[in-house]
Amino acid sequence: MFLYDTTLRDGAQGQAVTFSLQDKEQIIKRLDDMGMHFIEAGNPASNPRDAELYERLRHMPLKSARLVAFGSTRRVGVPAQQDASLRIMAGLDCRHVAIFGKSWDFHVTNVLRATLAENLEMIRDSVRFLRDAGKTVFFDAEHFFDGYRQNPEYALATLDAADRAGAGFLVLCDTNGGTLPEEIGRVTAAVSALYPGRVGIHCHNDSGVAVAASLSAVRAGATMVQGTVNGLGERCGNADLCAVIPNLVLKMGVDCFPKLQSLTSLSRFVSSVCNLAHDARAPYVGAAAFTHKGGMHIDGVIKDPRTFEHVQPEQVGNSRSFVLSDLAGRNSLMSRLRRIDPDVDRDSPVVARIWDRLKQMEFEGYQFEDAEDSFLLMVRKEMGLYRAFYEVLDFQVLCQRPEDVTSTVATVKVRVGNQVEITAAEGDGPVNALDCALRRVLTLFYPQLKRLRLVDFKVRVVDSDGGTASRVRVHIRSTDGRLSFGTVGVSTSILQAAWTALVDSIDAMLLSDLALHPCAKKGGVA
Amino acid sequence: MFLYDTTLRDGAQGQAVTFSLQDKEQIIKRLDDMGMHFIEAGNPASNPRDAELYERLRHMPLKSARLVAFGSTRRVGVPAQQDASLRIMAGLDCRHVAIFGKSWDFHVTNVLRATLAENLEMIRDSVRFLRDAGKTVFFDAEHFFDGYRQNPEYALATLDAADRAGAGFLVLCDTNGGTLPEEIGRVTAAVSALYPGRVGIHCHNDSGVAVAASLSAVRAGATMVQGTVNGLGERCGNADLCAVIPNLVLKMGVDCFPKLQSLTSLSRFVSSVCNLAHDARAPYVGAAAFTHKGGMHIDGVIKDPRTFEHVQPEQVGNSRSFVLSDLAGRNSLMSRLRRIDPDVDRDSPVVARIWDRLKQMEFEGYQFEDAEDSFLLMVRKEMGLYRAFYEVLDFQVLCQRPEDVTSTVATVKVRVGNQVEITAAEGDGPVNALDCALRRVLTLFYPQLKRLRLVDFKVRVVDSDGGTASRVRVHIRSTDGRLSFGTVGVSTSILQAAWTALVDSIDAMLLSDLALHPCAKKGGVA
Repeated sequence: MFLYDTTLRDGAQGQAVTFSLQDKEQIIKRLDDMGMHFIEAGNPASNPRDAELYERLRHMPLKSARLVAFGSTRRVGVPAQQDASLRIMAGLDCRHVAIFGKSWDFHVTNVLRATLAENLEMIRDSVRFLRDAGKTVFFDAEHFFDGYRQNPEYALATLDAADRAGAGFLVLCDTNGGTLPEEIGRVTAAVSALYPGRVGIHCHNDSGVAVAASLSAVRAGATMVQGTVNGLGERCGNADLCAVIPNLVLKMGVDCFPKLQSLTSLSRFVSSVCNLAHDARAPYVGAAAFTHKGGMHIDGVIKDPRTFEHVQPEQVGNSRSFVLSDLAGRNSLMSRLRRIDPDVDRDSPVVARIWDRLKQMEFEGYQFEDAEDSFLLMVRKEMGLYRAFYEVLDFQVLCQRPEDVTSTVATVKVRVGNQVEITAAEGDGPVNALDCALRRVLTLFYPQLKRLRLVDFKVRVVDSDGGTASRVRVHIRSTDGRLSFGTVGVSTSILQAAWTALVDSIDAMLLSDLALHPCAKKGGVA
Repeated sequence: MFLYDTTLRDGAQGQAVTFSLQDKEQIIKRLDDMGMHFIEAGNPASNPRDAELYERLRHMPLKSARLVAFGSTRRVGVPAQQDASLRIMAGLDCRHVAIFGKSWDFHVTNVLRATLAENLEMIRDSVRFLRDAGKTVFFDAEHFFDGYRQNPEYALATLDAADRAGAGFLVLCDTNGGTLPEEIGRVTAAVSALYPGRVGIHCHNDSGVAVAASLSAVRAGATMVQGTVNGLGERCGNADLCAVIPNLVLKMGVDCFPKLQSLTSLSRFVSSVCNLAHDARAPYVGAAAFTHKGGMHIDGVIKDPRTFEHVQPEQVGNSRSFVLSDLAGRNSLMSRLRRIDPDVDRDSPVVARIWDRLKQMEFEGYQFEDAEDSFLLMVRKEMGLYRAFYEVLDFQVLCQRPEDVTSTVATVKVRVGNQVEITAAEGDGPVNALDCALRRVLTLFYPQLKRLRLVDFKVRVVDSDGGTASRVRVHIRSTDGRLSFGTVGVSTSILQAAWTALVDSIDAMLLSDLALHPCAKKGGVA
């Protein structure tokens, strides 16, 4: 079984997806480290940046993966020897090439506007030309399933043309993503009977079944699966290798990917390179894929993870987590408390107090799903393990005509030890102004706060019945370049909710810094 | 074939998904309008808010959908008659109930810690008790596929127990989402042979194949498919009805959903209610599902859409778009403009101006999906059909210590004709204070504004890179008791974004009032 990654070629067609040369090199290195068999890195004949990439890749040693250059059959009426694109492909220092050609008669006549015979000639010429240049040629049969549905003889004739000209793998492409798995399996079985061990599958997700369709083809005899990391790709994307691979390995016993434990980190790496949010709900690799919420589920997983998990999260490099919610059990709370105080007793009054406080906060609309640091600060306060770093004596925010967003001014006055300081700052609206003023004044005491930086700011209305007096929840994620802090605040005033989350993020950063440099600590006010 | 929506019950288990009572009522109304067969709206026995929902739903007339209340079999060792949850279910004014019970022996012994015989007894008792209370009972066989894999006799015995006690549909649940479509089909066929026409399927997406698995079950004889809008649900979600339904109707010829054209708007509506970004890449309903990017694809689609589209976007209420030249968008704009001015010319300068303005606003983060009134006001302004009802001369918002939310005071000064008025108001945070002050001062001139009431207020961060200076979008829905107004504002300051949406809602209400009572109109300032 061969795995064929086309993240950098077909995946790059996805909305809002762009890869720089460096991005592509990094991803190729990762895929190679993990044992990917083939990597289609780009279309050098049609794209100058991809041509440069293949030039640079000549000097990049790969462990096991083979690079593939992608292109198409020759143009109508042009001999292969004179086709500019084929000549570029032939001249590449890259042994494997994939070229796509038409398998659907309707496309030949209505898009190419060529005769059916001419299209077969184009396939034959192009494959032979590249073979003669010493290449291993994969033939991508575009729209194969649509073609087979309408004119199976002709669709098979295109494969025959490629085969006779010396193509290696014949890849059946469901280019429009409209074929259901059952039909993909049936057709692949028919083709595999003719070319055993040389059939590949390339699915798109327009019907939401690309992963299942790929598995169906493997069951029917396909021995090469093409797809992209995170299912990136045009329209609804390609088959998601992050779901295809674990299904093959863990569910179908196809031993094709030794480093399955690196899958989650690969998936997150690619999202981060593309600057796309990682899909928390992605099968196997999403942050929520092994997150248990309901009390009964958590209870079951604690008794035996097999009760509510189809595979072990560690098998794909993911991890289990429990969501604190009004449904969740006390067990999950205890396991968190023990991280702060290993000796804490389940029946102690402090645990009861924390439990009550948690219920109260959840009732008010708090959610600690993405705000572990606010949760930990609350626990520390209840346990008497918290000393305030500063005291806010006063603040004031003044917003004038909203047409001028920078007209907002915040003033903050704080005390640390015996020293009192006051500062003002302007900002984009009241929350930003207050944030700026608070950081500015505290940096006078704690210069390490200069490193603290907001990376995400989310606002949700908890109940919208109250109109502009609705309760809102503000989630903040910040980083000091080393650690990441998630905090939350809830209030009917967005300003107060944001203030709570901001103050927690500053406290969390100062606390973590204290743990690192206990001697450098500055006295708190308490 | 029956479609069974569990967005409001199983979907509500999804991360960051919460529905208010009003949200649930709105979604039920939409699903009913579209011809959904069954709607599982909540778990009234375990959740007081859901109990209130079912109470309220008694007075909501439904056209075709049937509501289903969800619960579980009785507890171990408690007679059904004394089981608090079953008693609540029995007492509901809702004819259909679904109860889940264990079908996997491993769960019975290791989670329930009951004997296998006792579990069968629990299923029998519970179904019979609800039957005796006059209910139509659906039995959800939890972990059916895992159970069948390990102990098929026992798994079937649980169905037999439910069947003998009088259950209607027997729903096979792949609770952990770990079963591949081929096995789902094989097992469903075996069960369907025993209970023809009474088997349902309920899949989760942990292996990325929930849609295909549901289709596989239908092919094998299942006649009820459960799922959620947008695949909402715990971990990786449930089977996505927005992909299952069009596959059934358009690909498999199962005529089960008359209003397929409403599918895209349903999908976007549910995302907006949940305050979640709509997935552009979602099959069928995503904004990118019919977006063509490559030059060759665009060329092909212009020659004949069938070349690169597996179905017509209009069939599911979606639309085609081209990344380079958005022709489809312009048609939809024209049809909206003709509602304001039936004679507007496609090639007139005002249309070009509106088009440019719209593109600019969308670029800034505006979305008019749920804010038709802001869109119409923008168009009126560009067409010269807008006269301001008042002029804001000045305003100021002062927030002090955020611990005291009501300490925020807003002052607003306006002019209408020659009369100038100033008023102040306190509020919960800056947005609310400003809202209160603006309404109060304008009510002096336009007493009909007393009827205007906010019913929904949503905040979304458009790009979160800027931390507290991120661009936010505020959506407001308000009503004067007769009409509903949707408006939107975008800014880096939440106060300005809210102000824009508030001002638009007041304008929209005054405009509609003017259309009703032209003689009572008060002179504007322009």
